[in-house]
Amino acid sequence: MRFTWKMAVVFLVSFLWLSGLHAQEKAETFSPYVDDQGRISLPKDYRAKWTYLGSWAVPMKKAPGQGFHDVFTQPESVEAYKKTGKFPDGTVLVKEIRKIDAGKMTTGQAYWAGDIASWFVMIKDGKGRFKNNPNWGNGWGWALFNAKDPNKNVSTNFQTDCIGCHIPAKNTDWVYIQGYPTLK
Amino acid sequence: MRFTWKMAVVFLVSFLWLSGLHAQEKAETFSPYVDDQGRISLPKDYRAKWTYLGSWAVPMKKAPGQGFHDVFTQPESVEAYKKTGKFPDGTVLVKEIRKIDAGKMTTGQAYWAGDIASWFVMIKDGKGRFKNNPNWGNGWGWALFNAKDPNKNVSTNFQTDCIGCHIPAKNTDWVYIQGYPTLK
Repeated sequence: MRFTWKMAVVFLVSFLWLSGLHAQEKAETFSPYVDDQGRISLPKDYRAKWTYLGSWAVPMKKAPGQGFHDVFTQPESVEAYKKTGKFPDGTVLVKEIRKIDAGKMTTGQAYWAGDIASWFVMIKDGKGRFKNNPNWGNGWGWALFNAKDPNKNVSTNFQTDCIGCHIPAKNTDWVYIQGYPTLK
Repeated sequence: MRFTWKMAVVFLVSFLWLSGLHAQEKAETFSPYVDDQGRISLPKDYRAKWTYLGSWAVPMKKAPGQGFHDVFTQPESVEAYKKTGKFPDGTVLVKEIRKIDAGKMTTGQAYWAGDIASWFVMIKDGKGRFKNNPNWGNGWGWALFNAKDPNKNVSTNFQTDCIGCHIPAKNTDWVYIQGYPTLK
């Protein structure tokens, strides 16, 4: 069989296509919620598919995270944390903030989670993959989405928009572990 | 081939064994957490394997369910509820009660779930399977387990030990649906 120009073109196209697939695969290996510029998107089905870590009630009206917070992560990250005490790269923490509903029950005053207000999202990155993106640092990517536009991360710089509230959790990799019984 | 006494015994033993298997299967079909007398046991791995429904904060010291409540059920019951608006038979609601921890964060006062105190458990039974067991009625089996002995249901009669706190939820099959965003 003679090697023809037609065959050369087929080889070249196949090669480029496979290289493309491979590059895409590599990008997806880190996280399906992060693009190649470090832009973070909000996971969708965490309530039905992920594991619940714990909740916070932050009632003060002036608090930046005022509301009822439910926190979720991937099941495999919980397993890894229980074994190693660390969150593996790609771990996503979704902290869903809802307004606090309240009512008098036969058991007295009770508080629960009402309508959704916003989401805080952290994505573990132990390698400093996005040094030029100001939403990445201290071992995590940081994001904030508001209910009115869940497709837009409104955090522009984690140092000014996020880290302030996480100072008390500095010694536990910036995560408030004490409220997450699932990890114990 | 002649039919012998030996063959008759083999047939009889096989028949009894298969009947036994079948009966056991039927008992397990309703719920692995309920025995044939309607005795309820506490599911173990709900935090890692089940779906989280929502939380309640009940701060009043005198409240019978004082604490932070995290509520879980089986993933398939969530799917069924979303389709039909009803909990299928065998649905287990585990309400885990923890003491309320509190602390001043950079975001102001916050509350979260501390050590475990007890569990409220409800198991759906639309058929009234256990009419002679006083922990069953109103379409559910009812149980209360304390942290010091998670193997013992200390509820002796759901009418006196359980239903009082569920009166406000009578119109939603005795379940406080409004606090469970996962079902919406």
